[in-house]
Amino acid sequence: MTVHQLIHAIREKKSYLCVGLDTDIQKLPAGMSATPESMLRFNQAIIDATLPYCVSYKINTAFYEALGAAGWEVMAETIRYIPPTHFVIADAKRGDIGNTSSLYARAFFEQLGVDAVTVAPYMGEDSIRPFLEYHDKVTIVLGLTSNGGAKDFELLPLAPTNGSSQMLYERVIEKVAEWGTPSNLMFVTGATQAGYLKGIRSVIPEHFLLVPGVGFQGGSLQEVSREAMNTHVGLLVNASRAVIYASRNEDFAQEAAIIAQQYQVEMAGYLDDFVASS
Amino acid sequence: MTVHQLIHAIREKKSYLCVGLDTDIQKLPAGMSATPESMLRFNQAIIDATLPYCVSYKINTAFYEALGAAGWEVMAETIRYIPPTHFVIADAKRGDIGNTSSLYARAFFEQLGVDAVTVAPYMGEDSIRPFLEYHDKVTIVLGLTSNGGAKDFELLPLAPTNGSSQMLYERVIEKVAEWGTPSNLMFVTGATQAGYLKGIRSVIPEHFLLVPGVGFQGGSLQEVSREAMNTHVGLLVNASRAVIYASRNEDFAQEAAIIAQQYQVEMAGYLDDFVASS
Repeated sequence: MTVHQLIHAIREKKSYLCVGLDTDIQKLPAGMSATPESMLRFNQAIIDATLPYCVSYKINTAFYEALGAAGWEVMAETIRYIPPTHFVIADAKRGDIGNTSSLYARAFFEQLGVDAVTVAPYMGEDSIRPFLEYHDKVTIVLGLTSNGGAKDFELLPLAPTNGSSQMLYERVIEKVAEWGTPSNLMFVTGATQAGYLKGIRSVIPEHFLLVPGVGFQGGSLQEVSREAMNTHVGLLVNASRAVIYASRNEDFAQEAAIIAQQYQVEMAGYLDDFVASS
Repeated sequence: MTVHQLIHAIREKKSYLCVGLDTDIQKLPAGMSATPESMLRFNQAIIDATLPYCVSYKINTAFYEALGAAGWEVMAETIRYIPPTHFVIADAKRGDIGNTSSLYARAFFEQLGVDAVTVAPYMGEDSIRPFLEYHDKVTIVLGLTSNGGAKDFELLPLAPTNGSSQMLYERVIEKVAEWGTPSNLMFVTGATQAGYLKGIRSVIPEHFLLVPGVGFQGGSLQEVSREAMNTHVGLLVNASRAVIYASRNEDFAQEAAIIAQQYQVEMAGYLDDFVASS
């Protein structure tokens, strides 16, 4: 699925919800054994239940790697299970020297066949370019993340150049935006950092933002939507634990659907507000 | 294997060579088919041939992930094949919010059972701490990498604090060093950045440095050794392609051994020089 198709899906469903499949084998609902097979069945049930309310799924690779090869297979099977109507993100936060990043791009875009992968920017241009070379895929680069550790480096002020001062994450976003286009490049900007979203939008008015941190991490969907929506919507808001662990009992899928629908209804309202105000 | 045992191995073998198993299934020697089984046999032959000359192996996860679950299994089998006399590094460059990093730590330290894993620092403290909580394992954080892209962000000058100015990588190393000890924390510093090694040593005199970039990437082993060795040696120098692709013919393992031995002999000389000069 391309960014163009994603925009179409968002408008049609009035939802910019991404459901994060951070499935911890040790936290499966009552009655499900802690096996890779159960993990896959859990994901399939969550996908079946939430499909009408979201436009995207995000697979957090760590939760699958923790099971070794069997977990990687669950990840591959989960990705195959998601219909082409939904935008599939591998949240992998990869990045290495050029020839190694090429292999990561091959792993995610070709072997697993996802639409998008998250990439860490620390190592600079040649660590990101190999992903961007897949023009019909999307590279999602970490900008300003939702965690407390964002203050350690991402929010460090840089030495001023030409009289203007930036924080590291601002330079990252500005610089990386030169290497791709809104069709093959998005940025991660945490919902807990909503205060920075207006500034980010002034630098990259056109790019999609993948916004984690709503729900368990405490970010406000309303604030994020108000600050960061653009005329192409330009937002994917991810909820993981709030949806997939809405219930730890046998009704986990129905409860996940209820929460996903709540997000969708709220998002439909913000989409209407945006249209009305612009 | 602990850092203490690694130091012992380095002194005994007069080698601080790490052989990087960046095994590309598309570049196996003549006569080997492009299958996961061949990849494993290739790795086993390289390990058998180079064991006497190195103290460590570094598995570049990208090359295994590119094959999906089958590749992950080759990675696991390769790790199991390396004897406990050698320090095993997963070069994975992971890093995410705390609860996700915990899963990555579980994947690498428990599921795969490596001694060390490389971690990207962009997301700050809570992305790194879950790795450091494994006190008998080693977290290797990216400091200043060997690739051209290092200039994009790692070498950016920060706004001066208390009158002293630092580049981003210096702040990263200084800050991360507060979170661990020389027994559970190392840093990646590229061999192509030898000019910066003296400065890095002034900040972290005790920590081990994992130095890639000798060989194909053009870094000088002599310069790195002279600038960065400390009284515990404190260096692991990695060579990947220069060793494993020393020959593309049936003699690939013998040729890998010859190159590894050349590194070892050169390293023995630098170790003797260091003892003589200190």
